[in-house]
Amino acid sequence: MERLHKQMQFLAEIDKLKTVTRQSYLCDASRKEGDAEHSWHLAMFCLVLSEYANEPIDVLRVMSMVLIHDIVEIDAGDTYAYDTEGRKTQRQREEKAAERLFGLLPLEQGGQFRELWEEFEAQQTMEAKFARTLDCMQPIMLNACSDGKAWMEHEVKLSQIMGRNQKTREGSEALWEYGFTEYIKPNVDKGRIRRDIEA
Amino acid sequence: MERLHKQMQFLAEIDKLKTVTRQSYLCDASRKEGDAEHSWHLAMFCLVLSEYANEPIDVLRVMSMVLIHDIVEIDAGDTYAYDTEGRKTQRQREEKAAERLFGLLPLEQGGQFRELWEEFEAQQTMEAKFARTLDCMQPIMLNACSDGKAWMEHEVKLSQIMGRNQKTREGSEALWEYGFTEYIKPNVDKGRIRRDIEA
Repeated sequence: MERLHKQMQFLAEIDKLKTVTRQSYLCDASRKEGDAEHSWHLAMFCLVLSEYANEPIDVLRVMSMVLIHDIVEIDAGDTYAYDTEGRKTQRQREEKAAERLFGLLPLEQGGQFRELWEEFEAQQTMEAKFARTLDCMQPIMLNACSDGKAWMEHEVKLSQIMGRNQKTREGSEALWEYGFTEYIKPNVDKGRIRRDIEA
Repeated sequence: MERLHKQMQFLAEIDKLKTVTRQSYLCDASRKEGDAEHSWHLAMFCLVLSEYANEPIDVLRVMSMVLIHDIVEIDAGDTYAYDTEGRKTQRQREEKAAERLFGLLPLEQGGQFRELWEEFEAQQTMEAKFARTLDCMQPIMLNACSDGKAWMEHEVKLSQIMGRNQKTREGSEALWEYGFTEYIKPNVDKGRIRRDIEA
């Protein structure tokens, strides 16, 4: 009973992820996306697109990783991809958050969740690389669907996108290829992404 | 390329699930929950609570089921648990939605998703029963956290909750026991759920 009680308290606490707002707009551009719906969308990306991982992956592990990867933002907040100041303190803020949030769970289960999160952050395993590829591809798709609304608001440059996505192909060559050709390049051509380097 | 294109179009289309609103409030009672964040929360319930299934389950299958179980609501809308009129046409509306939405995917993948959804609806396998248990427990938890806000708004009676949850224990005795003792009974005692039968 003590164990289940801790687990239910964790599940109630992470309800707060629904109130953390990201910078990406929904496809219909009606509002910005929340962290919990972003995490759901990534899990769906994983379910639909796992065949495109560069090497065979453990789908359940990737799915678990994308479901929990943003939970630390309940305490640490969302750090926008191109916010260089925020990125300096991000790791420290998120570590503290992981400590508190996964610490609500029974000891060994909290440890497993922490491990999953650390694996995602460390970007060494194929599962972590594929999860990151999805995490980079999804906002690119949302941006493309919503006519580049967030890109234009933040005056995003192509060099920033290419820098941010330097390793996106490490999870999936095919998905990066598709994302660049179908989403990024056409939006550079339309002036929604600033062409500061050659596309 | 044609295959990946279909898959990405499906993933863009299901973005609409984020705009379907449910009747449950978030724990902080600030607003009603959306379908996509509900689905994320259920997947987290699955990840944390799978040990309480009455029989061993395929966790990836349950997780996939809860992630896709509400996608049909993009076309069919959310049908509130205690909306007896809406429930009469629910199955028909949702079948049509499944046809269109899973039909966006490559044929065999769309078939797999449809099968997962039908398995959830049919409630025969242990995976489907456990997924349904989570789908019933999560709004009960949200209601309890938010001081019974949705229960009171809809003047929900204990008999309705017991009717709706007749089979919740078939997925997990332990979770139903906990939900009844920790969430339902105390809220009957506090008058947030109408006591029309003995608790």
